Amino acid sequence: MMNFADRLLGRIEACNNPTVMGLDPKLDYIPSPMIDNWKNTSVAADTATAEVIFEYNRLLIDAVYDLIPAIKPQFAYYEMYGLEGLKALKKTIEYAHEKNMIVIADAKRNDIGTTATAYANAIIGETKIINDSSEAMFEADCVTVNGYLGIDGIKPFLDVAKEKGKGLFILVRTSNPSAGDLQDLKLEDGRLVFEAMAEHVENWGSELIGESGFSSVGAVVGATWPEQAVQVRKIMPHALILIPGYGAQGGSGKDAVASFVNGKGGIVNASRSLMCAWKKREDIDPMALTDEIGPNGEKLLGFQKATRDEAIRMRDDLNAALKEQ
Amino acid sequence: MMNFADRLLGRIEACNNPTVMGLDPKLDYIPSPMIDNWKNTSVAADTATAEVIFEYNRLLIDAVYDLIPAIKPQFAYYEMYGLEGLKALKKTIEYAHEKNMIVIADAKRNDIGTTATAYANAIIGETKIINDSSEAMFEADCVTVNGYLGIDGIKPFLDVAKEKGKGLFILVRTSNPSAGDLQDLKLEDGRLVFEAMAEHVENWGSELIGESGFSSVGAVVGATWPEQAVQVRKIMPHALILIPGYGAQGGSGKDAVASFVNGKGGIVNASRSLMCAWKKREDIDPMALTDEIGPNGEKLLGFQKATRDEAIRMRDDLNAALKEQ
Repeated sequence: MMNFADRLLGRIEACNNPTVMGLDPKLDYIPSPMIDNWKNTSVAADTATAEVIFEYNRLLIDAVYDLIPAIKPQFAYYEMYGLEGLKALKKTIEYAHEKNMIVIADAKRNDIGTTATAYANAIIGETKIINDSSEAMFEADCVTVNGYLGIDGIKPFLDVAKEKGKGLFILVRTSNPSAGDLQDLKLEDGRLVFEAMAEHVENWGSELIGESGFSSVGAVVGATWPEQAVQVRKIMPHALILIPGYGAQGGSGKDAVASFVNGKGGIVNASRSLMCAWKKREDIDPMALTDEIGPNGEKLLGFQKATRDEAIRMRDDLNAALKEQ
Repeated sequence: MMNFADRLLGRIEACNNPTVMGLDPKLDYIPSPMIDNWKNTSVAADTATAEVIFEYNRLLIDAVYDLIPAIKPQFAYYEMYGLEGLKALKKTIEYAHEKNMIVIADAKRNDIGTTATAYANAIIGETKIINDSSEAMFEADCVTVNGYLGIDGIKPFLDVAKEKGKGLFILVRTSNPSAGDLQDLKLEDGRLVFEAMAEHVENWGSELIGESGFSSVGAVVGATWPEQAVQVRKIMPHALILIPGYGAQGGSGKDAVASFVNGKGGIVNASRSLMCAWKKREDIDPMALTDEIGPNGEKLLGFQKATRDEAIRMRDDLNAALKEQ
């Protein structure tokens, strides 16, 4: 079974693009004619909500699956739409896999012992059900995890990752302004809390290093903190780094790739800037067919073309920043 | 709208019992004849799995709802059974509410900004769907939260809690052996990381203090760490404390109530010891009717009686420990 880190880096190389598309759906992001189509059906409102979200996700994937190696659905946005929303999440993951994209489940799970095993089984593993068959529930390729509970909370994810060729990204330095409330507290030995977390990540991942030299145990380090990214890369030479905070949250291309080594070792997330690219394009009718052909050979709708254009701009921005390193 | 802390303390007082029943279902916990009933139907295996889990939860609630003020479903155990499992979670929460129990959603969510708002809306709030109606998805009374991301990750939960009369419990010192990997690191100012987290909890909760003198922003502090519990109570005089780790994980009654003040201020969780009480009772056939009458006036099955007996033993153990304080 192929190591997750090798698999992700292979897809990044094939696309020549270290981008992951965050799929964090809100009804506000979707062009209103598409919403209206579903409003005017006899389908129940909760089901219609989930269907339009899945339809939008599917069309975004159709616009970029040759360009972008991975998606990162944020579980909160599906959970907020209830059981039907979670069904849309499951269908989105399945669809991305059909298109050969890697799926990073952004769930930030954390618990201990058998509970952590339950989460790991739910998201990257399998659960035995009543007829003794084992079922994969969400079937993601990797999952984000919060390490505040220590190794007891990580080990069950490591075990499933090892058995199934999956991965995890542990929060080290998050992209938000108040990340430092806890993460920047200074320890008596001079380290900061997030540096201590980074040391744990490097140690916890030592058994899952692939042929690429990177481990399937990665870290989350926000693009909004390039200095910290350089610092944690020294502590975690083997960790793949998942980098949120590019674009909307203020991180530049140069900031986003600060932790890369020889042009690799990380993947940069963009959510709103890709999902809502059409909102910045007055030249485009989001629901009208354009002349641009997508990867499946069909003409793209306006909002799809806007997302594809933004994906190309972002790819070129990141690659230019990598060349300058 | 009544403050959550006041509401929970009111129910604890009415039951004279600071216990919360953890509902962390696994098929292994359920007597095999009940499993077999569902195996031998034409219902799909994933649905049958969820149905038997809900049936077991419902019968456990029926056995103790006059004795125990609250349930704490651990989301991982439902997520592991997929979409049908999450449906069983939703039904369990609804059923507990019918029986006047308070529901603590043990989800340990953590994220920032609009994503944290999405989680808060999903679990303790409401989401606007396609027909512009607002729907409550899981409708719990409060939720566990991980504060590693700082106030950006807490504020959205605080806002929903304030608006809806709900609460949150923030992880401070977890019950597991490796809790100290991060939580016990010593800061240069002499505090430990979990003490710094406790200070945040006290500050973040200052606006949600009820007539009881306790805040709807509480903390999770494991029963396995009574010395730390005494220490954090000094730092957080207003926090309600949710205490896991009693029984199966090794915490005694005395350990569990170490953070109580004048006999109150905390709620002690027990999961396996209540859910699987029948496994320790060779004198009981788990599926046979007993002569004991439950709170709804019907005879209890063997496993229900075992859980009720254990609930009474635990209540008396905690109250005896409180008397000795």
